[in-house]
Amino acid sequence: MQSLLLIAHGSRRQASNDEVKVIAERLKQHCDEKFQIVNSAFLELAEPSIPAGIQQCVTEGATSIIVLPYFLNSGRHVTEDIPEIVDAAAKNHKVINISIASHLGASDLMLDVLVSTANASCHQK
Amino acid sequence: MQSLLLIAHGSRRQASNDEVKVIAERLKQHCDEKFQIVNSAFLELAEPSIPAGIQQCVTEGATSIIVLPYFLNSGRHVTEDIPEIVDAAAKNHKVINISIASHLGASDLMLDVLVSTANASCHQK
Repeated sequence: MQSLLLIAHGSRRQASNDEVKVIAERLKQHCDEKFQIVNSAFLELAEPSIPAGIQQCVTEGATSIIVLPYFLNSGRHVTEDIPEIVDAAAKNHKVINISIASHLGASDLMLDVLVSTANASCHQK
Repeated sequence: MQSLLLIAHGSRRQASNDEVKVIAERLKQHCDEKFQIVNSAFLELAEPSIPAGIQQCVTEGATSIIVLPYFLNSGRHVTEDIPEIVDAAAKNHKVINISIASHLGASDLMLDVLVSTANASCHQK
């Protein structure tokens, strides 16, 4: 079973972490043909951690895991921290194929979201 | 003149900060009818700061500024830090109308970006 693990930064504000869980649930509904398992995890400040999120996917029967960084920019969290943590966790699950997708902000669609948000802000004025 | 100020978190990794400047430039090209001025600024770790970004808009002739938080979640940066800094800066520019747009992650389009990124990661495998 192919699984998707959405990785967010994590916040001290629980409502922010809950948003990630909600969007992972919505993502699951839209990707259930390709990903039979969709979970979320956090780099820091919230649970589950990335290793715990990977373990959860494995426990649910994942044979492959795609880690999707829910980050806008390719800062150190995306370029260093997440790969290091995922690589270390992968050593505990050698029979599972774990790969890291592009971070969200790398999508060409992001400009559309920005334009839409900017335009909506005009109309609210 | 209406201006848009894109606020990103800021990174110690300059390439990440440069991405924000590039996307602000692309946004300017797509929103130039509504926003005659588009600039970017950073909450921390990079320059210009939010007050400096607001000042830059004013210097360029802005009569109104919409601050757009380039953040995915409504963590403390979005709910507390940015409003506090913007409110404090606004006191120095009382003749300018400064408002804060929804943060990027609040857009309904974000799910499309996630689905697209997840699907692309499948095809890369």
